[in-house]
Amino acid sequence: MAGEFRLLQGPVFAMVSESTRADCVNRDYPANARVDILMSRFWSSLVHTLTPYVAGEQPALRDLVKLNTNENPYGPSPRALAAIAAETTEVLRLYPDPAVRSLREAIAKSHGLDANNVFVGNGSDEVLAHVFQALLKHDKPLLFPDITYSFFPTFCRLYGIDFREIPLDDVMAIRISDYRQECGAIILPNPNAPTGTALPLSEIEKLIADHPDQVVVIDEAYVDFGAQSAIPLVAHYPNLLVTQTFSKSRGLAGLRVGFAVGQPQLIEALNRVKDSFNSYPLDRLAIAGAVAAWEDKEWFEDKRDRVIATRERLSLALRDLQFQVVPSSANFLFARHATLVGAEIAGELRSRAILIRHFPKPRIHDYLRISIGTDEECEKLLSGLADVITSLKR
Amino acid sequence: MAGEFRLLQGPVFAMVSESTRADCVNRDYPANARVDILMSRFWSSLVHTLTPYVAGEQPALRDLVKLNTNENPYGPSPRALAAIAAETTEVLRLYPDPAVRSLREAIAKSHGLDANNVFVGNGSDEVLAHVFQALLKHDKPLLFPDITYSFFPTFCRLYGIDFREIPLDDVMAIRISDYRQECGAIILPNPNAPTGTALPLSEIEKLIADHPDQVVVIDEAYVDFGAQSAIPLVAHYPNLLVTQTFSKSRGLAGLRVGFAVGQPQLIEALNRVKDSFNSYPLDRLAIAGAVAAWEDKEWFEDKRDRVIATRERLSLALRDLQFQVVPSSANFLFARHATLVGAEIAGELRSRAILIRHFPKPRIHDYLRISIGTDEECEKLLSGLADVITSLKR
Repeated sequence: MAGEFRLLQGPVFAMVSESTRADCVNRDYPANARVDILMSRFWSSLVHTLTPYVAGEQPALRDLVKLNTNENPYGPSPRALAAIAAETTEVLRLYPDPAVRSLREAIAKSHGLDANNVFVGNGSDEVLAHVFQALLKHDKPLLFPDITYSFFPTFCRLYGIDFREIPLDDVMAIRISDYRQECGAIILPNPNAPTGTALPLSEIEKLIADHPDQVVVIDEAYVDFGAQSAIPLVAHYPNLLVTQTFSKSRGLAGLRVGFAVGQPQLIEALNRVKDSFNSYPLDRLAIAGAVAAWEDKEWFEDKRDRVIATRERLSLALRDLQFQVVPSSANFLFARHATLVGAEIAGELRSRAILIRHFPKPRIHDYLRISIGTDEECEKLLSGLADVITSLKR
Repeated sequence: MAGEFRLLQGPVFAMVSESTRADCVNRDYPANARVDILMSRFWSSLVHTLTPYVAGEQPALRDLVKLNTNENPYGPSPRALAAIAAETTEVLRLYPDPAVRSLREAIAKSHGLDANNVFVGNGSDEVLAHVFQALLKHDKPLLFPDITYSFFPTFCRLYGIDFREIPLDDVMAIRISDYRQECGAIILPNPNAPTGTALPLSEIEKLIADHPDQVVVIDEAYVDFGAQSAIPLVAHYPNLLVTQTFSKSRGLAGLRVGFAVGQPQLIEALNRVKDSFNSYPLDRLAIAGAVAAWEDKEWFEDKRDRVIATRERLSLALRDLQFQVVPSSANFLFARHATLVGAEIAGELRSRAILIRHFPKPRIHDYLRISIGTDEECEKLLSGLADVITSLKR
């Protein structure tokens, strides 16, 4: 079959989905290979219009300092691993609970809510995908920041949602007053990504109260590292939905669990889409691991505090290296060097087996997003950076 | 929040998603409770039109003879459990491989294909959802049997796909010649569900050759139990896509892994939708378990043969109890009693802690779908049935 799958060169290459591209880069294709993969009469017309999301790379190299996808350096609670091991039996022959009651009850209980306030999914990306389809498609455009989680416009294209991007202000912050305009719904991360800046809860509440007839989704993927969660507002605002993930502060990016919290009407909309898409989105091991991880508060708090402490030290050290660092409430830093080009720094670091994330986008192309690793990993980053800066300045 | 979530009574109740209903049945609601959950101004308009799929029940009762969701009585390969255990470490802090190369290569290799011929997803339901969105939405209607996997019309509503149901013939079989009509695409299970009847490969090939300009999807969830797979035809037909699952013959319903096989153009359409929906649909444990399960051919063949042998014995025993049994190539039997009402038999069995599946639908409302369990479970079913038949005939 290989002969029928031809690699495309140059800018068109970027249009191929990340998954197919992963197949290409491991192969030798003739440089002049023509492409018949880009279009097919068999595709639904939608497929031609998609611009798939590009995730940070996940290379399988050893001794890599991997600070590019905001993973947690300390891993999951040992209780999560024990719970997964206990479920690794012949019980895997049976379907999981399609309603995932155990996990929804655990999350609800810790917030004084009911299970019917909680929706869970296969990572917060799946949760967000259902949110976009079920709650964010209206006649008027969806609003979100121009610099934010880059999956948002991808979801909009997948579901045909009209959207308007609201520019961050001059210090890379979200200004709530800019959202006082006609719209169908609003979504924003708090803290925002990739900037790491957080809004105080009073500002979030102002936004929700400003739009009583629109759904306002707060994506709190990074909230545990220094921002205030809007979950306590859920009881008061029927238009508020909050999403979170087990991938960052719970150290379980490899298990794929995310959730949303809101009033039952919003949760029912998500259930309807989920039950029209996949009855069993969470497998038995993910459910068992997530419940145990959620209940191990001590591990969670200890590792979160360590990440925050390392972040503050790294932030100071980066400033010493002439970086401007955006104040962060997340498990990453967003920074640019006073004189050097961002893409060049990222490229030089990569050649030294240090991965950080660079976004080739307007307004932020000189910034680097650096995940907070262990102190040892951050030391390696700093010495790599010092080295890179010296060589680039030459 | 409980006060804001009100149960609806009567036929409207069926419109609530299965997941929300699961919340209701554990609660006491006043009989005259009004319903404000059915609609919300916050919903995307699509949500009002959905009819969510209703999966077979997954009660958490002990000593249940559970023959209602076609699970494998023998569970997964011990090698799969060992592979999962080996991955249950702090490596779960890292995202999985978004391209899932290891599993795609394992599947491809055993069929003499390339990884770019294989797409994997979070259960074959997720794979099918992407297939419907990426490949089955066209100006002309999608064709599938009137009696088939009941998720198909649900997917069509989710993605706004026009469809036409083609009646099975008088012996509950698919007649290929009935599909010789204008259409946008075709999907059918082989063996079909819930009937269990299979078409020979020559008929499948005729169908594919009849429609060179339309995608033909063969859903082979049950193929290992006695039908011929169409995967060997993939190399010859660019319009053929075959889907399979690890939930049945691999005994891993609790792990959520399914896949599709086709030429790279079709796979790229699926990758585009997947990379616009969720970059990492399979978690690390599911990937590790599925690769090991796939490679343990001996376990697979032994357990498959046992299920087939039990099926043939059960089929004969049911005939002795005056059931008409549809010839099955799957891990279930579809049967109706010569004189008794299907729903009553299912209800009586349920009160004896024996679950089988009954579909309250035209043409098949007197049929029962019985999953093949262990010999011991099937003995319990038969003695329960003998008991039920005696009491119902009184």
